[in-house]
Amino acid sequence: MSVQASTIADWVAVDWGTSNARVWAMGPDGRDFAHGAFDKGMGALSPGDYETTLLDMIEPWLGHGVTDVMICGMAGSRQGWIEAGYAPVPAKPVGGGLACPATTDPRLNVYILPGLSQASPPDVMRGEETQLAGFLSINPKFDGVICLPGTHCKWVHVSAGEVVSFRTFITGELFATIGEHTVLRHSMGEGWDEAAFDAGVDDTLSRPEMLAARLFSIRADGLLNGTSADAATSRLSGLLIGAEIAAAKPYWLGQNVAIIGASKLSSYYARALESQGALALRASVDDVTKAGLRAAYQTLKENAE
Amino acid sequence: MSVQASTIADWVAVDWGTSNARVWAMGPDGRDFAHGAFDKGMGALSPGDYETTLLDMIEPWLGHGVTDVMICGMAGSRQGWIEAGYAPVPAKPVGGGLACPATTDPRLNVYILPGLSQASPPDVMRGEETQLAGFLSINPKFDGVICLPGTHCKWVHVSAGEVVSFRTFITGELFATIGEHTVLRHSMGEGWDEAAFDAGVDDTLSRPEMLAARLFSIRADGLLNGTSADAATSRLSGLLIGAEIAAAKPYWLGQNVAIIGASKLSSYYARALESQGALALRASVDDVTKAGLRAAYQTLKENAE
Repeated sequence: MSVQASTIADWVAVDWGTSNARVWAMGPDGRDFAHGAFDKGMGALSPGDYETTLLDMIEPWLGHGVTDVMICGMAGSRQGWIEAGYAPVPAKPVGGGLACPATTDPRLNVYILPGLSQASPPDVMRGEETQLAGFLSINPKFDGVICLPGTHCKWVHVSAGEVVSFRTFITGELFATIGEHTVLRHSMGEGWDEAAFDAGVDDTLSRPEMLAARLFSIRADGLLNGTSADAATSRLSGLLIGAEIAAAKPYWLGQNVAIIGASKLSSYYARALESQGALALRASVDDVTKAGLRAAYQTLKENAE
Repeated sequence: MSVQASTIADWVAVDWGTSNARVWAMGPDGRDFAHGAFDKGMGALSPGDYETTLLDMIEPWLGHGVTDVMICGMAGSRQGWIEAGYAPVPAKPVGGGLACPATTDPRLNVYILPGLSQASPPDVMRGEETQLAGFLSINPKFDGVICLPGTHCKWVHVSAGEVVSFRTFITGELFATIGEHTVLRHSMGEGWDEAAFDAGVDDTLSRPEMLAARLFSIRADGLLNGTSADAATSRLSGLLIGAEIAAAKPYWLGQNVAIIGASKLSSYYARALESQGALALRASVDDVTKAGLRAAYQTLKENAE
């Protein structure tokens, strides 16, 4: 928690995820002059908790009048503050209808952005649509594919300012859960072994069906040959990312590719893509999230005029 | 726990796994006349606990003299009673050197069977070697492949009474951990949907690299289309078993195939194999485990003569 402000915000931007909430005080010039980060995510809140939690986070920035608050992320899910639904693709990333939860404090005017859905294959995103909007506001001519690594990695085909199609891979969640809850938990380390990562990527790129056997080999290799924990962890990461790169080939092959994600994880995806001859641009999650909330707010104001 | 005996055993057979221990009182005719099952597996015991635990389980069957106890399974692992090592393949399934833990009770004479190891690709088994020995003692001419479904499913190539090679898949553990610890935990049910299982098998048999995306689609399908929890669980099982059947093809293609495992899980593997035109015989785990311990005990006695 680190709110640094004593000035009144023109409006407030909020990225409200499953585990955390981040808030930015936006000035009349459209830039943030203060921000905060809190461990009050959707997973820890009931619908009745959101208004007080929001006030705890942003009250120093409120004036006597009404302040607009633009929220993206899991606060708009069925388990969140109020369900903000999904806009079906193809669609502009943040063009869909906003949800407006009722508040008791008259100083608050809250908007929550909807997610995006795809009918076939069935898929959803919530939060990433705002990052995509931000990326497109910075790169308005971009036509190609955006990869958003994380717990649930998204591959998104973007054309003419719209999301055309997307696909979610639970690679990050598989990495965490296999390392924590299977027999491999005895073999995991904290460090990084690039050669082991690269070999893992190669192995599942060529024979993805062998995944469940290769996972056990990591354990057996440790038992019989004393392979290091760092090599085991890096190999696990490589095996899972390699399979994803193979599966996402129709997305990235011959396309402009951009990666939006945490720095370390993004570098692993970039490395695996490079091994297949694909070069990817990188963008900061923070920058594009703020830019996306700003774009959504501007659209709201333009429509109101 | 259900020990049913008042007679003295000729010798005692024990299958001592990670979570459970099963014991059989063997008569002079080589058949068991009583048995018990206990939730005192390797995971719950320190090395110093084994002798008292064993006495709790089998004391009613002990006479005044010395009784031989033949143990297979995780009691022989590094985290068990005493490490029984691994015999490198190719090898007879139970021909390797036995470990003999020291006991304070003079009525006990304990032997623990070693596992099997493979140098490349690195792999190990412990417990299954006894089931293989039992299967071969019942089917001495068998030449082909044995599939042992479970937490860690083994595919084993057997020829001329020896284990030639094998490969472990952590499919069962992936099923449990994905259903319990990822976003799919919100979608899991108890029932069975055969069509959803079959479609899952087909999908990963043809495109195994899509696993991480298809897992998220199960969740999205539930959110957008209200797919049933039973269908979601059966599809998850089908996706994972389908990938394993694809990977194990060099094992089962054109071979005699036998399946040793729990009844329900074995039927899923048999169904997936049948979809590929491969017919598999089935054998009961209980029968082959007892037969394997009996074969190991007979070998010990013959060598002692």
